[in-house]
Amino acid sequence: MMSFEITTELLETVTSYIEASNDTALVEYFENMHHADIAEILDELSFEEAIYIIKLLDSEKTSEVLMDVDDDVRERILKNLTAKEIAEEVEELDSDDAADILGELSEERQEAVMSQIEDEEHVKEIEELLTYDEDTAGSLMAKELVKVNENWTVLKCVREMRAQAEEVTRVHSIYVIDDEEKLKGRLSLKDLLIASTKTAISEVYIPNVDYVFDHDDLDEVSFKMRKYDLEAIPVVDDNHVLLGRITIDDMVDVIKEEAEKDYQLAAGIVEDVEADDNILELTKARLPWLILGLFGGLGCVLIMDGFDESIQAIENIETLFFFTPLIAAMAGNVGVQSSAIIVQGLANDNVKGSLWNRLLKEVGLSLVNGIVLGVILIAVAPFMGLEVFYSITVAVSMLCVIIVASLVGTFVPIVLDKRGIDPAIATGPFITTSNDIFGIFLFFLIAKSMLL
Amino acid sequence: MMSFEITTELLETVTSYIEASNDTALVEYFENMHHADIAEILDELSFEEAIYIIKLLDSEKTSEVLMDVDDDVRERILKNLTAKEIAEEVEELDSDDAADILGELSEERQEAVMSQIEDEEHVKEIEELLTYDEDTAGSLMAKELVKVNENWTVLKCVREMRAQAEEVTRVHSIYVIDDEEKLKGRLSLKDLLIASTKTAISEVYIPNVDYVFDHDDLDEVSFKMRKYDLEAIPVVDDNHVLLGRITIDDMVDVIKEEAEKDYQLAAGIVEDVEADDNILELTKARLPWLILGLFGGLGCVLIMDGFDESIQAIENIETLFFFTPLIAAMAGNVGVQSSAIIVQGLANDNVKGSLWNRLLKEVGLSLVNGIVLGVILIAVAPFMGLEVFYSITVAVSMLCVIIVASLVGTFVPIVLDKRGIDPAIATGPFITTSNDIFGIFLFFLIAKSMLL
Repeated sequence: MMSFEITTELLETVTSYIEASNDTALVEYFENMHHADIAEILDELSFEEAIYIIKLLDSEKTSEVLMDVDDDVRERILKNLTAKEIAEEVEELDSDDAADILGELSEERQEAVMSQIEDEEHVKEIEELLTYDEDTAGSLMAKELVKVNENWTVLKCVREMRAQAEEVTRVHSIYVIDDEEKLKGRLSLKDLLIASTKTAISEVYIPNVDYVFDHDDLDEVSFKMRKYDLEAIPVVDDNHVLLGRITIDDMVDVIKEEAEKDYQLAAGIVEDVEADDNILELTKARLPWLILGLFGGLGCVLIMDGFDESIQAIENIETLFFFTPLIAAMAGNVGVQSSAIIVQGLANDNVKGSLWNRLLKEVGLSLVNGIVLGVILIAVAPFMGLEVFYSITVAVSMLCVIIVASLVGTFVPIVLDKRGIDPAIATGPFITTSNDIFGIFLFFLIAKSMLL
Repeated sequence: MMSFEITTELLETVTSYIEASNDTALVEYFENMHHADIAEILDELSFEEAIYIIKLLDSEKTSEVLMDVDDDVRERILKNLTAKEIAEEVEELDSDDAADILGELSEERQEAVMSQIEDEEHVKEIEELLTYDEDTAGSLMAKELVKVNENWTVLKCVREMRAQAEEVTRVHSIYVIDDEEKLKGRLSLKDLLIASTKTAISEVYIPNVDYVFDHDDLDEVSFKMRKYDLEAIPVVDDNHVLLGRITIDDMVDVIKEEAEKDYQLAAGIVEDVEADDNILELTKARLPWLILGLFGGLGCVLIMDGFDESIQAIENIETLFFFTPLIAAMAGNVGVQSSAIIVQGLANDNVKGSLWNRLLKEVGLSLVNGIVLGVILIAVAPFMGLEVFYSITVAVSMLCVIIVASLVGTFVPIVLDKRGIDPAIATGPFITTSNDIFGIFLFFLIAKSMLL
């Protein structure tokens, strides 16, 4: 298959078909197209056009398209579909995707849609999935899986599987359960293919499989799946009854989303915003941190104003003020570096040793960095017409500021993490702003005692 | 399987066995342990202890352990193994992992190890993989896969597969090729399980499969696998001859690494550093950006010094200097926000429309943000004892600085991307520092014209 790319020509073709209500041409056009590609086209069309296509095409196809379009496009489409139409889409989807769609509706509409779904088993499964909290294994699992009883033979197993496999998009593993539906182990398709038909399942299955509990945190699931290179992991309840499975493709999306969230938080953007969102959405995502920055800056004004009178006697006092952006930048940069390393270390579970050792190491690191930077500053200063005693004062202040900033950058995320708060919110503007204030204060305190 | 966790007790047990040279106990201890868990233990032990365990255990197990330990641990272990010992490990690994191990050795040692590997086919495969550049599909693919000829029957196919499958750790898809080894399509295990044995492969296989070329960029491969929810993708050469396959578990590692790299670049850390690295390594990763920040700060000093004489007549001129950290912080924050959104948009391929439209949108966004922030500032200023005309000057400057900062933050990554340079390096300190300089300059320029 060649790479799919959206061209202006392609969009014009689709739009012209819609304008002409040429349904036959549209159906034919999308017939052999992958649902992810159709979704990409829908993201580019107007909402009216997107809804036209969704209503036109077969729900077997559009249900998958709905899962792939941008969140805001899906929201608008769902608003414009009747409960009956949504039910048709939902019927085609696996339980996990179906629950995602229903989760986006109001409770009232949820019930209306549910009542239109014919398959009662499907409704029960979706309802079960909807009870889980967003960040738990249960919320990501699908109920569709292939399971066989440990007491069966390979032959009976293959027969049963043929029936079950029809329902399951992709068979990763065949789970082995006992009479009480408790997870006993798994069977790989490969093993099944190689084993003779008369063999008992109990003889060929692999016991001791990895599993997660339905209430486990998704971070834990992600960690386990990556560590053990799993493509699917079974989900059980506290009695080890097999409830569902989580597949790697869903987990990849979670990993990607988590990484983007952390990145955005570090950059001072409230999560969940895209380059193509409108100005209002982007403002909502960006303004809060900027307001924080504004008050941080005003804090710096107050600090300097507070020092102003008591340091008037310093010779060339203005030169001192020239250095405030430098001090603030250093405090910010060092703080962000320290916090980023800690946040990543916490996420990957490789922050070991005590908090004291960690902070001591940061002091060591800051001493090395601060001394190198100080030496550069003192070496450069004469060329800027700066007196030596002045540049030494700035260098000493910078060293202290770097140490404090790195301690703040390290300490805050660790404390947040210990309290169960996402440490990623402490990177970016939060650390920069507090370090600006600490930094400016320290700078003037040190300058005052050294230069007066 | 219960969750695995490293305890002090566990480490003490292992260490005491090693001290007592109690090999029997060690072998037994690790017998049923997953290689990823053993790797985690090795990361915690001393290098001597880690090497002791690697040399003791069976290479079938240790080869996988070697792939899972931290990079620096692996480096040290490889240094302490003979070419013969490394060859034994490599023989157990799939071609892609084997090539990774060999890629870490000097050319001389590579040859020494290769000459010790008995399986000539394996050597040829590894040599082929070693020719690929780091960021290409070819470098990540494994040669091990299950392929069947389109002219076979299902029966012949199952027979051949039993032989091939022994070699392949996980069968994702069965690839269908023609007599010239060109990729024709794929066959799912599920379909094969359901089809009758006499059916011809040509009747049941799925044509039009996704594939990538060996020279394709890994970003592209990652994008395709995520978009189409693929668990494996075949790799072909320019003649469409099937060369290998890339599996999702390897891709997950790439996605995770890429995300961490971007995050670190945004935080002003040279990539590839961990919380547990030593002070020298951490300094090497952090100091370069701090030096950039230092010179940025000195640039601000020069700018203010340049303005100093010409603005001496401004009343309460010191108040003006009090606001420089605020202006610098705003310029930095806005720039980082803009660049982060663009960098993520570029990575996800959703930066659409022309550069001019994009920049125009940033101006609109900045106007909204800047006006809100300006109003807040003017409202708060009287409580800080600031004259209205002063606060209006700062607010106007801030608005202009925000506009310029957001344009720089948007423009630079897009230009870098167009020139084939990773736009992620333009986030973080680079943008902050240049925006500090632009911001301070603009601030004094505007203040001078408004207050004089």
